[in-house]
Amino acid sequence: MNITTTRMELLRVFKIGGHVIDEPSQLDQFISDLSMMNCRKIIVHGGGKIASEISSSLGIQPKIVDGRRVTDKASIHVVTMVYGGLVNKLIVSKLQATGTNALGLTGADAAAYRGTQRKPGAVDYGLVADVDTDNVDTSLLQLFLERGITPVLAPLTADKNGTLLNINADSVASVVATAMSKAYRTELVMCFEKDGVMADPEKHDSVIDQINISEIGNLIEKKIIHGGMIPKIENARKAVDKGVSKVLICNANKINTIDNTDKLTGTTIYA
Amino acid sequence: MNITTTRMELLRVFKIGGHVIDEPSQLDQFISDLSMMNCRKIIVHGGGKIASEISSSLGIQPKIVDGRRVTDKASIHVVTMVYGGLVNKLIVSKLQATGTNALGLTGADAAAYRGTQRKPGAVDYGLVADVDTDNVDTSLLQLFLERGITPVLAPLTADKNGTLLNINADSVASVVATAMSKAYRTELVMCFEKDGVMADPEKHDSVIDQINISEIGNLIEKKIIHGGMIPKIENARKAVDKGVSKVLICNANKINTIDNTDKLTGTTIYA
Repeated sequence: MNITTTRMELLRVFKIGGHVIDEPSQLDQFISDLSMMNCRKIIVHGGGKIASEISSSLGIQPKIVDGRRVTDKASIHVVTMVYGGLVNKLIVSKLQATGTNALGLTGADAAAYRGTQRKPGAVDYGLVADVDTDNVDTSLLQLFLERGITPVLAPLTADKNGTLLNINADSVASVVATAMSKAYRTELVMCFEKDGVMADPEKHDSVIDQINISEIGNLIEKKIIHGGMIPKIENARKAVDKGVSKVLICNANKINTIDNTDKLTGTTIYA
Repeated sequence: MNITTTRMELLRVFKIGGHVIDEPSQLDQFISDLSMMNCRKIIVHGGGKIASEISSSLGIQPKIVDGRRVTDKASIHVVTMVYGGLVNKLIVSKLQATGTNALGLTGADAAAYRGTQRKPGAVDYGLVADVDTDNVDTSLLQLFLERGITPVLAPLTADKNGTLLNINADSVASVVATAMSKAYRTELVMCFEKDGVMADPEKHDSVIDQINISEIGNLIEKKIIHGGMIPKIENARKAVDKGVSKVLICNANKINTIDNTDKLTGTTIYA
């Protein structure tokens, strides 16, 4: 760590997913813990079950391949309503009520994080975007942060033709954290329903405290990291590899322990 | 007009309603015309039929009293999805595609325009807010405008407790234009499906070019201004009375004539 880095202000990018969003009491607790935290913050949220439920109510059958939503024209409207509207504004208004000056954005807004539609491969995911570190408008996000505003980012963007596109929320979090690491000492906190990466998925107390990115390949080979955890870890690896100080994978209800290393539960990924 | 005023930059606040939003070709034309216009802009949008359609599909019956939506808990979720999500992001992404750097906001975002829930009177409108000129964060909107960003405002806000509330879009447009008139020479352009205020509603060519706010009472008495036009004109009167240079009530498909007085069709309200 050089002098420039130590002088940098701390920014934490939080990713929250379906589990915490679907459960009002969990979301309230998360937001209350977050508001107590004294550093610059960006929140990236997923959508959770609400999108699938609303799709079904509207007679649109959600299609999931390999844990990722296949997005057609009808689905992108639902996703825009639920992620860009309902979930984003619920989080923003709850944060405002706890004294955190939040502002919701999609990647389409002021082209904050513009995407390009993913070319069909083995699976055609439809209206789905990939985002790149270079397409994050860091100066816009910095403008908000330095004004005391906490950006709340929805996993949604548009391409240059105005086509709305769905993005994986983990990818948004990873790419935004990486881009912002040029201006801040940036930590990426990926919250989910488990306490971290487990050595034994049956044992709650088997959380692996620390993983160096050089060990990831080995852990995947041994199937300790498997299934849906693999893309999460890959996003974490990329972020740490390209400038993010560390990635913490933890339970959404444990973020109040982040500043207390003794009580911290979760897996820290570092380079 | 004093020297300070003439030195001020021009800002136009556009209000667009259901008619233009419901018709994709009209919306595209409006957005294309808007992007050609060389001045600072803010857009305020309503929701249109989409909110009612989605409500019905979800089994939530929309309730309208005196042309205003009665908003219960289920309805505010629909309104948040449709106004804050779908409509807002469709407009933002279309503007981006025509080269206008748009950013969507609700009043909850960075408390840009915070509301207070309307106390029940003869009718209890439920989760509906009134907004006040004093509750518009003009410095935030100015920050966007001076960065070349066009704010796109949804008729939605939250109170200090984080309760999401519906607002009438005409009121948002009027209040925001009034607040911004301290910093800019501000014109409010209220777009709808007619060519302006008609002397005879049966005759398309009977548009009244200009109305001084002192004549409004008389025109209401003579029933030339009536029905849904009354609250629109009241919003216009308030805006002009409190600093907005002029209000133009015109067809959404005529905004390309605004800078050409010879061809301008619409009703200008002035003080």
